[in-house]
Amino acid sequence: MTISPEQEQRETELVATVLQSFEGCEDPRLLELVQALTRHLHAFAREVRLSDQEWNAAIEFLTATGHITDDRRQEFILLSDVLGLSMQTIAINNEADGDATEATVFGPFFVENSPAIEIGGDMSGGAAGEPCWVEGSVFDNSGKPLAGVRIEVWEADADGYYDVQYNDERTAARAHLFTDDQGRYAFWALTPTPYPIPHDGPVGRLLAATGRSPMRASHLHFMVSAPEKRTLVTHIFVRGDELLGSDAVFGVKESLIKDFEVQAPGTPTPDGRALDEGQSWSRVRFDIVLAEAARSTSEARSS
Amino acid sequence: MTISPEQEQRETELVATVLQSFEGCEDPRLLELVQALTRHLHAFAREVRLSDQEWNAAIEFLTATGHITDDRRQEFILLSDVLGLSMQTIAINNEADGDATEATVFGPFFVENSPAIEIGGDMSGGAAGEPCWVEGSVFDNSGKPLAGVRIEVWEADADGYYDVQYNDERTAARAHLFTDDQGRYAFWALTPTPYPIPHDGPVGRLLAATGRSPMRASHLHFMVSAPEKRTLVTHIFVRGDELLGSDAVFGVKESLIKDFEVQAPGTPTPDGRALDEGQSWSRVRFDIVLAEAARSTSEARSS
Repeated sequence: MTISPEQEQRETELVATVLQSFEGCEDPRLLELVQALTRHLHAFAREVRLSDQEWNAAIEFLTATGHITDDRRQEFILLSDVLGLSMQTIAINNEADGDATEATVFGPFFVENSPAIEIGGDMSGGAAGEPCWVEGSVFDNSGKPLAGVRIEVWEADADGYYDVQYNDERTAARAHLFTDDQGRYAFWALTPTPYPIPHDGPVGRLLAATGRSPMRASHLHFMVSAPEKRTLVTHIFVRGDELLGSDAVFGVKESLIKDFEVQAPGTPTPDGRALDEGQSWSRVRFDIVLAEAARSTSEARSS
Repeated sequence: MTISPEQEQRETELVATVLQSFEGCEDPRLLELVQALTRHLHAFAREVRLSDQEWNAAIEFLTATGHITDDRRQEFILLSDVLGLSMQTIAINNEADGDATEATVFGPFFVENSPAIEIGGDMSGGAAGEPCWVEGSVFDNSGKPLAGVRIEVWEADADGYYDVQYNDERTAARAHLFTDDQGRYAFWALTPTPYPIPHDGPVGRLLAATGRSPMRASHLHFMVSAPEKRTLVTHIFVRGDELLGSDAVFGVKESLIKDFEVQAPGTPTPDGRALDEGQSWSRVRFDIVLAEAARSTSEARSS
């Protein structure tokens, strides 16, 4: 669209006026953020020639997003996720650092104060799904095993829901444990299954309107933290999952796709656990390398 | 900040992946909007190297903005206003068209179904303030008077509040009327006084943190609509108001600053209205020119 020089001047002067209004800000970082936000927001509106109806629709969309958000549902995080902003923030704050394990999106379903389990314990809390033995070790960037590392794990059940999505007070399929003195960990989880992100709200309507699927590739969440190490927020994904190429929140990275080896019913379990008659199970290995904390500020998300 | 070529590639590839995810969108305008939003949003995050803490703060800010918004308070409109986005949208959708009266921000306090008043009637509804006689005519761009034009007017009272900001069901200082067969209108209002935008919420905290004032220059809102004409959403401002240069929402335009002539107590009123003993009043003239509707889509905001 061509606009007149007079119109161009009117619009650029407005941007300059807004930028100038922030000049009294005494926090230089906040000043940088609000001025950059102003520039990019106005550039967006001017580029697309945002109509009044579209502005109204945006206000209504944000309002609906706010109103569906509560202690158990965070629609703004979902919005950030489906626009790839969450993953971009992860990328910015987790620059490659030697062999450090790659990070991915945090997601809206982490809950503080998860149950503690011992090594070899079961994090499922009775949630439905195929048992999955998860094991590995945690190292620093020089290959040294790290003892006492806190590992938070959480996942959806076989019906595709996290505990907090049920209308009761259940706690299931989330736990935390610590590595042993040789940096090792192991626990029983559920073989991850694909599920849609909550799509009965504004974000779901956005996905539907733009022809996108709300499905997430199957995954198991990890948050791994240790003193002086960069906190790692990541998932492991299931090799062979057909959704790996179309994850709704752009969370998949090649290095995080793992072999979940399916075990026929009756196959002895690593710790001698007796499973139900006819129950298959799976196992996966995930060795983790933590970067040094000084390289990033990403530990804040876990605080 | 310098980033490695590997990091640069990782970030740009993510943007490309998100843009590609929208390619199935069947509505070409929606496709344009979401892809442009994605580009500008990622450009912002990458330029400022958005930290996890800042991302978290943004999520919390938007959540709080959503939670304070209800039928009577629209914090997202306030946010758009203080970032100049509302005014930029107005500018984009109200390109100069001959002598057409300039538009300005809509604001969050318009209410549907305002009381009807006759020409010469009082829109104050008992709200506190100095009486102000407002008169003018409405024309098209060729100078032809327009009969039957709907004029909505609304304003804050002398305490700086709109009716909907009180915790009762009052309707005051808002009304609508129609021009007569010669395009004329007149009504009693209140002399506009300065007031802060609501600043006890997230937007107020943003203004405080960035050293900005929440004050709006004194003004009286108009929305003027007629068939086949571009709906005009505007204000008139009070010449001499010291806040004209620092309006919190960037709404002031030189052409909208009017002379409110103060009248000493006892000065005869235009319609013979008897005012209280010792009550001063003011008068202002505001002639309005409506553009043709075909030039814009701005009428949608009034629907």
